[in-house]
Amino acid sequence: MAISNIRYGEGVTKEIGMDLQNLGARRVCLMTDKNLSQLPPVNAVLNSLAKYGINFQMYDNVRVEPTDQSFLDAITFAKKGEFDAYVAVGGGSVIDTCKAANLYASSPTSDFLDYVNAPIGKGKPVTVPLKPLIAVPTTAGTGSETTGVAIFDFKELKVKTGIASRVIKPTLGIIDPLHTLSMPERIVANSGFDVLCHALESYTALPYNMRSPCPLNPIDRPAYQGSNPISDVWALHALRIVAKYLKRAIRNPEDREARANMHLASAFAGIGFGNAGVHLCHGMSYPISGLVKTYKPKDYNVDHSLVPHGLSVVLTSPAVFAFTAQICPERHLEAAEILGADICTARIKDAGFILADTLRKFLFDLNVDDGLAAIGYSKADIPALVKGTLPQERVTKLSPRPQTEDDLSALFEASMKLY
Amino acid sequence: MAISNIRYGEGVTKEIGMDLQNLGARRVCLMTDKNLSQLPPVNAVLNSLAKYGINFQMYDNVRVEPTDQSFLDAITFAKKGEFDAYVAVGGGSVIDTCKAANLYASSPTSDFLDYVNAPIGKGKPVTVPLKPLIAVPTTAGTGSETTGVAIFDFKELKVKTGIASRVIKPTLGIIDPLHTLSMPERIVANSGFDVLCHALESYTALPYNMRSPCPLNPIDRPAYQGSNPISDVWALHALRIVAKYLKRAIRNPEDREARANMHLASAFAGIGFGNAGVHLCHGMSYPISGLVKTYKPKDYNVDHSLVPHGLSVVLTSPAVFAFTAQICPERHLEAAEILGADICTARIKDAGFILADTLRKFLFDLNVDDGLAAIGYSKADIPALVKGTLPQERVTKLSPRPQTEDDLSALFEASMKLY
Ligand SMILES: NC(=O)c1ccc[n+]([C@@H]2O[C@H](COP(=O)([O-])OP(=O)(O)OC[C@H]3O[C@@H](n4cnc5c(N)ncnc54)[C@H](O)[C@@H]3O)[C@@H](O)[C@H]2O)c1
Ligand SMILES: NC(=O)c1ccc[n+]([C@@H]2O[C@H](COP(=O)([O-])OP(=O)(O)OC[C@H]3O[C@@H](n4cnc5c(N)ncnc54)[C@H](O)[C@@H]3O)[C@@H](O)[C@H]2O)c1
Ligand SMILES: [Fe+2]
Ligand SMILES: [Fe+2]
Repeated sequence: MAISNIRYGEGVTKEIGMDLQNLGARRVCLMTDKNLSQLPPVNAVLNSLAKYGINFQMYDNVRVEPTDQSFLDAITFAKKGEFDAYVAVGGGSVIDTCKAANLYASSPTSDFLDYVNAPIGKGKPVTVPLKPLIAVPTTAGTGSETTGVAIFDFKELKVKTGIASRVIKPTLGIIDPLHTLSMPERIVANSGFDVLCHALESYTALPYNMRSPCPLNPIDRPAYQGSNPISDVWALHALRIVAKYLKRAIRNPEDREARANMHLASAFAGIGFGNAGVHLCHGMSYPISGLVKTYKPKDYNVDHSLVPHGLSVVLTSPAVFAFTAQICPERHLEAAEILGADICTARIKDAGFILADTLRKFLFDLNVDDGLAAIGYSKADIPALVKGTLPQERVTKLSPRPQTEDDLSALFEASMKLY
Repeated sequence: MAISNIRYGEGVTKEIGMDLQNLGARRVCLMTDKNLSQLPPVNAVLNSLAKYGINFQMYDNVRVEPTDQSFLDAITFAKKGEFDAYVAVGGGSVIDTCKAANLYASSPTSDFLDYVNAPIGKGKPVTVPLKPLIAVPTTAGTGSETTGVAIFDFKELKVKTGIASRVIKPTLGIIDPLHTLSMPERIVANSGFDVLCHALESYTALPYNMRSPCPLNPIDRPAYQGSNPISDVWALHALRIVAKYLKRAIRNPEDREARANMHLASAFAGIGFGNAGVHLCHGMSYPISGLVKTYKPKDYNVDHSLVPHGLSVVLTSPAVFAFTAQICPERHLEAAEILGADICTARIKDAGFILADTLRKFLFDLNVDDGLAAIGYSKADIPALVKGTLPQERVTKLSPRPQTEDDLSALFEASMKLY
């Protein structure tokens, strides 16, 4: 497995100008979104660029929950700019958009579909060299600063998909917990749920030595390789931090210790799932986001409907882990215990039920919408949701328990209402 | 922090021929030592090279506990061979020698001292590109497959020192636990003690935000940056594995689970200390090895006297942690608990004493030589041992507690006899 460079510490963003000097950068592309462009994280980066005299152009048109269109817009900007380095300041939406911009500007004759995951795109391996990309995460969620993945919503198909290649992993992640202080409550919550699911899914993913096919040549193996003794360390550690700090981080914007710990946990979980992969919560989340109707979440300063990624993954988590537990119940029980369940008298065959229950309590305590029904879905949408999950086999096949279309229907149905 | 690529699994060595093909290697340098050249790990590599038709030359003249002379011999071989990739199959001695060979063959006009750590050498930063190096560790000890460090015994000065640069870190570490099965008992023990000390020292090292000087520019910061929330994860995890498996791995060569876990722990601890650093046990070990008189350890199939690295670090560990505990007693107590001490009624001010005692019991159970006296040192050697420690400030200054020459004398004296 491979892990990006990360630098951690309060205020380390001020060094970014020096990092760019050290890279010999002469034309830097700074990417962010409209909301963040007015907030302290972008300010801190701008100050450092000014101090070290870095020549840059800013693109603040990133779409929250990016689409193929919004990726293409950023790619066009990147191609025109002929940049020699990239800086992404934002959540997963910004970092992912910046990865795509760097990739396609470095491979200007490629078709957009060339690098998009098969079967939706062609999933070609990337063989061109990219420019350095420094990611400055401002949410405590995706861990995108540590992964080789960029996710977008494919509008035509109404489904999220992505690009996955070790090559697009940022050169450096600057994890400055000061940036988490400006996050409103629901952004902390939703991005925190993403960390929770990255940890739970990568810990329960199919073990690396049971994945099939297992290509003979190491170079042909997927980035998501199944759970393994190394990703397990990261997943469990991130889960312990989530258990200890997520509620505090959500409830109290002044709780620096909690917010800083969640910021680190997002990178830890990212390293874990970036190597092991995620499975059903993520696979099923892509149509949940892609088919959004009119849902507008609180605290998101945007003008379109969207289901925030973290919310779209966590709403199915009770149903998913109740379903997967029979294959590796010990891991499910261990996760439930870390999340606070008393398992002294628990029976191993109840592991799935116990973890599901623990998750429901956790979400209820945090005022999370009561299931898919509360964000606008009904039974009638289930066939479309299932259809949107089927092409996500890159992740769904990492589920420890294989699933039929009927299983997926049942999982969506069980997720309509949680409490 | 940065972490190498590693691949883990029983039998994964058979893929090395493909890895070399993927790298486009046409002239490979295979390095090992005389003893290993007759054993299964080298055999497994040779089989894969043959299967994939890889053109290679073998150098099996690596010295166990390398010296400047033995490094130079390997460097001469590497320069002549004009290789485009390196494979190191062995313990730290082999992997470190191979790193040096790759470095100086890639920088042919450099003086040997150019890259050796200051103040002994010039400590110049490496700016030349190196060839890919695949490390296949056969001990469960140094973690050298994950670090940017190469250690040797500087004969003239009778002291060990090294080369430290992120650039010499192997491109890929292949961790195949089958290779640990041929290790005799004392090699398992001594290399395991190295893992133990890497974990304990990096966990108790000066915190990264208290290190001084702290160069303004990130590029000037040392590879060993002090303990930090990320290295802590690796250190604690490695320590837990050592506590659970080291004794089993030593006592029973057939205990695959124990040996495999120790093999992983050595890489985990390597990632931890490769970023955080080590401190006094390692700083003091360099003269303990460098000044060796006539000690010949059991199970080492070599014709010169030597103090195995793991033994040289662990013999001072009770004294060292009794000395450092007053600065961060909680961490010392936590380590003692992981190693099996009952700390229910422990007082925090006894943390150093408790950890020292736990270590002494651990070593006694494993029949470790009774202190420096048992390996040939007496009080009369202490001034020379202290003198040899002073230039090791790259590591000794990472001790949480600063030390005077008198402190060092007292630590050596306290380590003469353990039980
Ligand atoms: N690449 C990966 O590995 C990966 C993993 C998981 C999810 N994702 C993707 O990442 C996206 C979600 O990213 P996200 O959850 O980080 O959120 P986001 O980037 O979509 O941002 C959500 C909102 O939070 C605001 N915001 C961000 N940081 C803020 C701060 N510090 N203060 C105030 N407001 C702030 C943004 O302006 C935006 O309005 C989705 O598209 C998802 O699919 C990617
Ligand atoms: N680079 C680093 O990060 C780092 C860290 C710690 C120590 N070191 C250095 O590494 C060296 C010690 O390395 P080590 O402890 O791995 O031992 P080693 O490489 O010195 O080997 C010790 C002995 O074990 C034998 N051996 C190794 N693997 C075997 C196997 N599988 N079966 C049978 N015999 C086997 C070798 O032939 C040799 O005789 C020292 O020079 C030390 O200073 C380097
Ligand atoms: Fe996610
Ligand atoms: Fe060591």
